[in-house]
Amino acid sequence: MMSDNFLNKKMSRREFLKKAGIGGAGLAIGASAASAFFTDKADKAHKTIEGKQEISFYGKHQSGITTPVQSNCYFMVLELTTAEKATVIQIFKDWTDYSHSLMSGKVVKEEGDNLYLPPNDTGEALELNPYRLTLTFGIAPSFLDKLGLEDKKLPEFKDLPAFPRDQLKENYTGGDIVIQACADDAQVAFHAVHNLVRKARSHVSMKWSQSGFLPLGDGKSTPRNLFGFKDGTVNPKKDEWDDFVWCNQTNWLKGGTYLIVRRVAMFLETWDRTSLGEQEKTFGRHRDSGAYLGQKDEFDEIDLEKKNEDGELAIPVDAHVRLAKEANQTILRRAFSYASGINEVTGQFDAGLLFICFQKDPVQFIDIQMKLGNEDKLNEYITHVGSGLFACFPGVKEGEYLGQSLFE
Amino acid sequence: MMSDNFLNKKMSRREFLKKAGIGGAGLAIGASAASAFFTDKADKAHKTIEGKQEISFYGKHQSGITTPVQSNCYFMVLELTTAEKATVIQIFKDWTDYSHSLMSGKVVKEEGDNLYLPPNDTGEALELNPYRLTLTFGIAPSFLDKLGLEDKKLPEFKDLPAFPRDQLKENYTGGDIVIQACADDAQVAFHAVHNLVRKARSHVSMKWSQSGFLPLGDGKSTPRNLFGFKDGTVNPKKDEWDDFVWCNQTNWLKGGTYLIVRRVAMFLETWDRTSLGEQEKTFGRHRDSGAYLGQKDEFDEIDLEKKNEDGELAIPVDAHVRLAKEANQTILRRAFSYASGINEVTGQFDAGLLFICFQKDPVQFIDIQMKLGNEDKLNEYITHVGSGLFACFPGVKEGEYLGQSLFE
Repeated sequence: MMSDNFLNKKMSRREFLKKAGIGGAGLAIGASAASAFFTDKADKAHKTIEGKQEISFYGKHQSGITTPVQSNCYFMVLELTTAEKATVIQIFKDWTDYSHSLMSGKVVKEEGDNLYLPPNDTGEALELNPYRLTLTFGIAPSFLDKLGLEDKKLPEFKDLPAFPRDQLKENYTGGDIVIQACADDAQVAFHAVHNLVRKARSHVSMKWSQSGFLPLGDGKSTPRNLFGFKDGTVNPKKDEWDDFVWCNQTNWLKGGTYLIVRRVAMFLETWDRTSLGEQEKTFGRHRDSGAYLGQKDEFDEIDLEKKNEDGELAIPVDAHVRLAKEANQTILRRAFSYASGINEVTGQFDAGLLFICFQKDPVQFIDIQMKLGNEDKLNEYITHVGSGLFACFPGVKEGEYLGQSLFE
Repeated sequence: MMSDNFLNKKMSRREFLKKAGIGGAGLAIGASAASAFFTDKADKAHKTIEGKQEISFYGKHQSGITTPVQSNCYFMVLELTTAEKATVIQIFKDWTDYSHSLMSGKVVKEEGDNLYLPPNDTGEALELNPYRLTLTFGIAPSFLDKLGLEDKKLPEFKDLPAFPRDQLKENYTGGDIVIQACADDAQVAFHAVHNLVRKARSHVSMKWSQSGFLPLGDGKSTPRNLFGFKDGTVNPKKDEWDDFVWCNQTNWLKGGTYLIVRRVAMFLETWDRTSLGEQEKTFGRHRDSGAYLGQKDEFDEIDLEKKNEDGELAIPVDAHVRLAKEANQTILRRAFSYASGINEVTGQFDAGLLFICFQKDPVQFIDIQMKLGNEDKLNEYITHVGSGLFACFPGVKEGEYLGQSLFE
């Protein structure tokens, strides 16, 4: 399926980036993060379209973080309504069993034939393959407070600071636990969250959620966001994940990572009335090719000093990519678009980016967003309305359970 | 891909149904309507997964009605903010051009290289194939009122009556124009609506919208709704469409049809606590096989008189399938599931069925829903919160435009 030409191009790009020692340029929006994930696995991902490919639940790290991105996401944040540690441990043990079954394309628990009991599995994914389902679990700092585990708080594990221009809404913030379900089928992702929440229903309530999608296309192009720009061109590669993604201090989060989510509302109608030149200067990229302004190819290196024919900086001082690059931090982005009907206040599309990123220390994201929140020209067209920070447990070995390193 | 066994089974089922003279049994919920569409085209639909298959915009009828169902739907209802007939005609002419381009996987209009103008196309579907995109346009009775076209009102073309137990919400009702975009990629469907609305933005506002999805799986099984039951087992076949779907009176709607939409909220949490026996009696089907109660195979004929071993009716008097069958009307169902976060009032899943059906006369649906609204046991678990009736124009021949038969 994949042309040799494509593979060569990708390979040489990787070599190039390595030699050039490029780390940063993490865009906080424009962040579908797909092309990086395609680099190694494009043709595999591409062939899973009937949903037969299965991702392993067990491993050193949780799935859904460095897994090649899927076409659908169902993102759910829960509030704990119990303070009993033993109860919460049992929930995570149940979720461990359920997750393994779900990711294998099985029902959460075999059904008996008792007509007088509710089914064990809600059933909407019967007959469906796993569709590369991944499930990623994390906890907020408030989780530790509620369970009297304050002594487990790591120095960097605290709520995000207020960022410039944040417009956070009550119904897209807060919560103690995150479940990120990603799959190449929307119903498979929903079914997983549905059953996990159901199992814990006596001890959790739903705080907020958002579904998202991503056009994976033929796997050859970086997906575009709803502003029409390619997004996710730059992302750390496999050999950089230990440096930027996985926590490696000797504590309960070793092998885990921090998930940061931002629900970024994008004002499509305003953007659509903006000239192409303005749009390109806002991102700092050409729309069609995805190349940095002043460059030809999407994967050409950024040149912050380059001047255009008028003697001005090709990438303006307030362009999104320049500021992101200048923040000099690297994050693993794994974002999805969303389109959730009509905003009741403005009467315009309630659409945007469910921005999700992973990093070994929240400061990596904080540095970027502090810079972007102040100066980014893109702020004229977007607003961050949702936010969350979650510590994602390390991966689970057979016989272990999710969060075991925290609780024991 | 498709086994001979599958094809034979389907073929013999068609033969069987024809011989048995089965018409009705149109469920107003449980209506993904996919298996019927698979009958003829399963393997084709199945192979379009990279999105290369293109549906023709031109034809005797509009697309998205009898087209084999896609995995995604973006459903948009607009309000007219102009009373100028000439303006509205121009909108439909523009939409005709745009739709043809969109369904071909092209930008809505070629771009120039003027950096001082906004792009013609919003760009988020660049590089993407058509993904079987269909676009279906219709108008509400209010559309004729607003444009002084009351003389075009056909006797059956009037707002739906109030149904028993309706709980319609302001933000899922009303509007003058519908655009139904369906595709095998969520972003392709959204992109189409985005650009069509943008083109008419000075003369329309967005009234309500809903995105939906459907698990097409391997094309061998009838998709399940979010209650875990197979849905869409019975739907009229190609040789029945003239009898049940296409308007054939000599007037502007000849070759068109009526679209009815219902946003059906499904109370998943309540359903999930219900015993399997209760669930099956509510639908009148076995959950696993999809067969009618008392039957073995999903495609076995319904037997309303059959008794179970206790001497009771196998399909209870208030079961969904019995009532739908007794209404003795046939509609073409083409529904999608939706999951739109959390209901702010109940704190439970805001999920359900975006029920869409097509019929040559609204009375076909009205008869069914009057029956179901009163007696259906399923009403304990669902509520209709959105509603709409739209007359969908006949298809467009090259050189014509959408709605021409109405305006000229």
